[in-house]
Amino acid sequence: MSSQLGKIFKITTFGESHGHQVGVVIDGCPAGLNIDFSKIQQKLDRRKPGQSPWTSPRKEEDKIKCISGLSGTTTLGSPITLVTDNKDAKPQEYKDINKILRPSHADFTVREKYGFQAPSGGGRLSARETWARVAAAGVAEQVMEQMEPTIKTRAFISSVAQIQAAFDLVHADQISIDSEDFPCPDPEAAKKMKAYIENMKQDGDSCGGTITCLIEGAPTGLGEPIFDKFEALLAQAMLSLPASKSFEVGSGLVGTTQKGSEHNDPFSIDPKTKRIKTLKNSSGGIQGGISNGEMIYFKVGFKPPSTIFKTQDSVDHDQNKVSYTKKGGRHDPCVLPRAVVIVESMAQIVTLDLILRNKASKMNALR
Amino acid sequence: MSSQLGKIFKITTFGESHGHQVGVVIDGCPAGLNIDFSKIQQKLDRRKPGQSPWTSPRKEEDKIKCISGLSGTTTLGSPITLVTDNKDAKPQEYKDINKILRPSHADFTVREKYGFQAPSGGGRLSARETWARVAAAGVAEQVMEQMEPTIKTRAFISSVAQIQAAFDLVHADQISIDSEDFPCPDPEAAKKMKAYIENMKQDGDSCGGTITCLIEGAPTGLGEPIFDKFEALLAQAMLSLPASKSFEVGSGLVGTTQKGSEHNDPFSIDPKTKRIKTLKNSSGGIQGGISNGEMIYFKVGFKPPSTIFKTQDSVDHDQNKVSYTKKGGRHDPCVLPRAVVIVESMAQIVTLDLILRNKASKMNALR
Amino acid sequence: MSSQLGKIFKITTFGESHGHQVGVVIDGCPAGLNIDFSKIQQKLDRRKPGQSPWTSPRKEEDKIKCISGLSGTTTLGSPITLVTDNKDAKPQEYKDINKILRPSHADFTVREKYGFQAPSGGGRLSARETWARVAAAGVAEQVMEQMEPTIKTRAFISSVAQIQAAFDLVHADQISIDSEDFPCPDPEAAKKMKAYIENMKQDGDSCGGTITCLIEGAPTGLGEPIFDKFEALLAQAMLSLPASKSFEVGSGLVGTTQKGSEHNDPFSIDPKTKRIKTLKNSSGGIQGGISNGEMIYFKVGFKPPSTIFKTQDSVDHDQNKVSYTKKGGRHDPCVLPRAVVIVESMAQIVTLDLILRNKASKMNALR
Amino acid sequence: MSSQLGKIFKITTFGESHGHQVGVVIDGCPAGLNIDFSKIQQKLDRRKPGQSPWTSPRKEEDKIKCISGLSGTTTLGSPITLVTDNKDAKPQEYKDINKILRPSHADFTVREKYGFQAPSGGGRLSARETWARVAAAGVAEQVMEQMEPTIKTRAFISSVAQIQAAFDLVHADQISIDSEDFPCPDPEAAKKMKAYIENMKQDGDSCGGTITCLIEGAPTGLGEPIFDKFEALLAQAMLSLPASKSFEVGSGLVGTTQKGSEHNDPFSIDPKTKRIKTLKNSSGGIQGGISNGEMIYFKVGFKPPSTIFKTQDSVDHDQNKVSYTKKGGRHDPCVLPRAVVIVESMAQIVTLDLILRNKASKMNALR
Repeated sequence: MSSQLGKIFKITTFGESHGHQVGVVIDGCPAGLNIDFSKIQQKLDRRKPGQSPWTSPRKEEDKIKCISGLSGTTTLGSPITLVTDNKDAKPQEYKDINKILRPSHADFTVREKYGFQAPSGGGRLSARETWARVAAAGVAEQVMEQMEPTIKTRAFISSVAQIQAAFDLVHADQISIDSEDFPCPDPEAAKKMKAYIENMKQDGDSCGGTITCLIEGAPTGLGEPIFDKFEALLAQAMLSLPASKSFEVGSGLVGTTQKGSEHNDPFSIDPKTKRIKTLKNSSGGIQGGISNGEMIYFKVGFKPPSTIFKTQDSVDHDQNKVSYTKKGGRHDPCVLPRAVVIVESMAQIVTLDLILRNKASKMNALR
Repeated sequence: MSSQLGKIFKITTFGESHGHQVGVVIDGCPAGLNIDFSKIQQKLDRRKPGQSPWTSPRKEEDKIKCISGLSGTTTLGSPITLVTDNKDAKPQEYKDINKILRPSHADFTVREKYGFQAPSGGGRLSARETWARVAAAGVAEQVMEQMEPTIKTRAFISSVAQIQAAFDLVHADQISIDSEDFPCPDPEAAKKMKAYIENMKQDGDSCGGTITCLIEGAPTGLGEPIFDKFEALLAQAMLSLPASKSFEVGSGLVGTTQKGSEHNDPFSIDPKTKRIKTLKNSSGGIQGGISNGEMIYFKVGFKPPSTIFKTQDSVDHDQNKVSYTKKGGRHDPCVLPRAVVIVESMAQIVTLDLILRNKASKMNALR
Repeated sequence: MSSQLGKIFKITTFGESHGHQVGVVIDGCPAGLNIDFSKIQQKLDRRKPGQSPWTSPRKEEDKIKCISGLSGTTTLGSPITLVTDNKDAKPQEYKDINKILRPSHADFTVREKYGFQAPSGGGRLSARETWARVAAAGVAEQVMEQMEPTIKTRAFISSVAQIQAAFDLVHADQISIDSEDFPCPDPEAAKKMKAYIENMKQDGDSCGGTITCLIEGAPTGLGEPIFDKFEALLAQAMLSLPASKSFEVGSGLVGTTQKGSEHNDPFSIDPKTKRIKTLKNSSGGIQGGISNGEMIYFKVGFKPPSTIFKTQDSVDHDQNKVSYTKKGGRHDPCVLPRAVVIVESMAQIVTLDLILRNKASKMNALR
Repeated sequence: MSSQLGKIFKITTFGESHGHQVGVVIDGCPAGLNIDFSKIQQKLDRRKPGQSPWTSPRKEEDKIKCISGLSGTTTLGSPITLVTDNKDAKPQEYKDINKILRPSHADFTVREKYGFQAPSGGGRLSARETWARVAAAGVAEQVMEQMEPTIKTRAFISSVAQIQAAFDLVHADQISIDSEDFPCPDPEAAKKMKAYIENMKQDGDSCGGTITCLIEGAPTGLGEPIFDKFEALLAQAMLSLPASKSFEVGSGLVGTTQKGSEHNDPFSIDPKTKRIKTLKNSSGGIQGGISNGEMIYFKVGFKPPSTIFKTQDSVDHDQNKVSYTKKGGRHDPCVLPRAVVIVESMAQIVTLDLILRNKASKMNALR
């Protein structure tokens, strides 16, 4: 019951980090759409490890294979299944640590829940599972390009540890994210962030930070009151990501300190489009759980990865106290560079599902 | 598709703010349990408006009626339906403003989505709907008392605007929440908070803040990877509340600034219970989406209510610019005092659903 | 988890036979539609007991009350809740038999499943629950009239015990169902059926039969392969009715005895509409689980009601053998007269849900 | 939204007949169970084509591959993905007929629903999809052997065209099904059936019949009132099978002709087990939608396959009338021999899901 998300564009991810394949089945993708797999591959390459000094040296081609749901490049309306091989799986690396509960990993909770320890690596709960999310989002993105072509989803690194990037959401169109491997709108801050991450890596330590995501050009009317408000589904999707600890939509925590008279977004008429718009956007583009046509934006916080190379106290399965020092193996000193595309992906999956749900729930269902 | 939450303990809320009744159907409550409705009524009374200077003067008895699912006080295993009458509905109060889009209300988005403006008040999206959530949680709480009696859920006000309460989560057992009508663990801060809220009220303005919630005594193993991680479902539940803008679990935003070596929670053996426990709790009691037996804690941020009595710019339905000043009517200058029990309630509903789901998904399903 | 049906037009029924109310919440009804409650009441009156010699003398006004989801007569897009009072509940009548397991009732299985005997009457499993289905269908029917006005759903009694009605489905437009209280297309057979039922009643016995249902004017494209084929959802809906034992779609059991060359429905062009149609309709209007534009028809078999007034062998809760003779109380000697509208109702609920699902799943979702 | 079945043991099948692979993801299988894939392969071999004169000569190894969800032979609690390659796919065979709507195939309805004709063969709606159902049932069966070892599910051919097999359900333990490739309890009838099918084959025609299925040893309490009654879910599952036209549970259509006094099943005490049992079993082991501990039995009717080699009238996509004669290609003259294991499989999938659901819904959830 756990690996499914969505009501209409419904995804089920599968696969363990050190098994044969990871993948996803998408049930509910509309028929008759064209899918360009080279674009999905490009998207997937953005989360691929081993590409920069700031990410895990694990090498995976991560090549996408489509085993159902298309005829040529056209969606059939039947389930789309996308998989990739785990070529660089090294379960043996994990053998010696199998008896040790690694601090802040899921070793202990998985054993408590399922009655045994995952035999190697993070198993199902590894960040490798996020491959499947990005693959599904690759489809979602192209479906949206054909259904709601104005929507653009962009995420970027907004902080690493204490280092904050400067950017102005009021002029989001001027936010430029200069680099694929370290997407950050503030080049000065980015330099400091990269240095900080490299420091952490050299020190065998790790660090966290935040990612900000923008959904621009979304139509009004997306989001289902009561429990499936747009921001509620985004929050679930983001907190389902490994290492995420916080979610803020619109004004977020700053908004909790403001007065209503400061926070409220006055309505006005856009002189160009003659359409109703708000003069500012504390709401983050969502009011009453429903998109209002303004830019949707939110921020997700990630903790430092649990895998570090410093000596830590722990216990083993036989309840002996142990001193645990990871030697070798691969890890990301900071998840942010690779998480940017994952955050975008989850936003796209949630948005498309709401677009499809909207077709049935609004009055226009009648036309 | 929007008013349902949960997979096994599945709730469907219904009712508009100014209709006849609001209520909830609970499908999937186990049979053979005893329900004490006077306790549910007490819980509901905690969210009732009109009880203090800090809340809306709307008067509602909010008396619970059970119209199905029990024989005497025993659950039958069939859907439990709980309703209350809307006695103090005053739709006429909203008549004159029907043509004006109130800033940061859902008037505009509801019209865009459904093709018409809700005729009065917030309609379905009013905070009145939360009555149904608390009623359902009243059942959930009593079910848990019989199934997992160690679980206790407590929430409190942790900040109002810039005023922060001081409290120590490491000694959560010593946190005392002195007052039902203003639950805050720091009496000094509470005094300032109340004064601030009264100021806002006098000024016709409003304010926000944060609520911290503790789930103590939860067993290990709750939470379903991948998408239904415990924190992901909590995040959805909290962001589905009116006016909520942020969610942090465990170390939250502070955690994003720490190093892995600071953030990781070392495992150890509890000398008394001989059970594995962590020496600190940055994880917030959840690792890999699954509860680890430590205290679960999270923080929810609420923006200031949109209803204020100051003059604001807006437009009407015919796209004329208007100056809008609300006169009379009822409103909460701050949602926090009443939201405390609502946050607790959502936490209880999510927790019970995961308890019931766990019965089917873990190895113990075999026994 | 048991009282819900549908994916988009999702209904949850609630209420026990001898509790305060029975009702239904409809989540997912599109907004902006007009609902005429007097028409729903007429529909409900068709299933009302106590109206003819052939039905239970239980007297219920069965008056519908709408407690949420509409503003005036317009749907709001929020959950629609419909209830009726149980005015003629007589739990005391069942007191003396509480210890006896009535043959072929659910007394035993409910006790086994839930751990106690329902204290009175059939409780949740009584046919009284079908009130809620018909009420929901009253909404579904009116939604369809506005969305797909060509669809007409008609059911009738096609057999009682061994007495078969004669009718010609090839000329379904000429099938007339002369009477509201005994809808049967063959007046001669109807006379015999009524006499047979009256005989059963006088003898304290009961009888079964079949109901045939036609869905005329459905568009092509309804039904979701693989598991939610149109006929699969109809089968579930019909077998969820109390006392139903069989379901046949199209050629049904007769079809199992034919050759492929007899059974196949050749395609042709309708000279008038210039549209593709089949020259005959063994398929029952569904091919590959999807409607093909021809008339959909199916037949549902009902066993004789379990409640009879003859002496029967049974056991009590303490496992003593007993001789059980029901004295007094109310019962239908045959469910068919009242089940006709219930079969129609379930067909309407299933059809509307597929119409709404279709909006998201077919290529037209793009337009 | 269409390729999923189940609430807890939830399966999603995928793959087109002439694509690369067909397969299934099982989400919700409990952890810690042992799966013997050679047994699943044996089960799959029972539905394999090309094994007898009575089935399609299509040759497929149908070899099962498990790509996720197990560590060695142990289930991990994560999604189990099973696939097989389509080795003998011959899409070119279908090229010339692409423009013709084959009578009683899904060509027309798929085109109407999805806006294009499936490019080859039956595509998603081919019986090849049933491989995935049997594979999932291979897991379900082994899970049940470990959780509810008394349950045995057996199906057999009960009629072909007009030829009825004789068997006595009262002594079901004496029903022996002598042959794997033509499972029928009546050897004399089987001989006639086989001859009839061979005749049909030689004649380029096809035939139908019925399959009876027994679920023996099921515990009491399975089945969820109201809409998910055991028989309702079985009916959906069976009518979701290609070519199925009817479903009867227990007394079925015969029951519709009986009197209540004949049909009712008196309760008694089993002298050996001292447990309550019924003296006969018109109910088919289900009362009020819930299993009563007696044998569950039901019958499914299948029409003759649509693919025949006789000349038929049809139209092409450009609405020209055509005379269509299939030349070559592979087809089953009768689906029954291969459908036996598929019917069993669907029964197992439904039963296991109800077993798992029961853990959460009955009072025992408390223990």
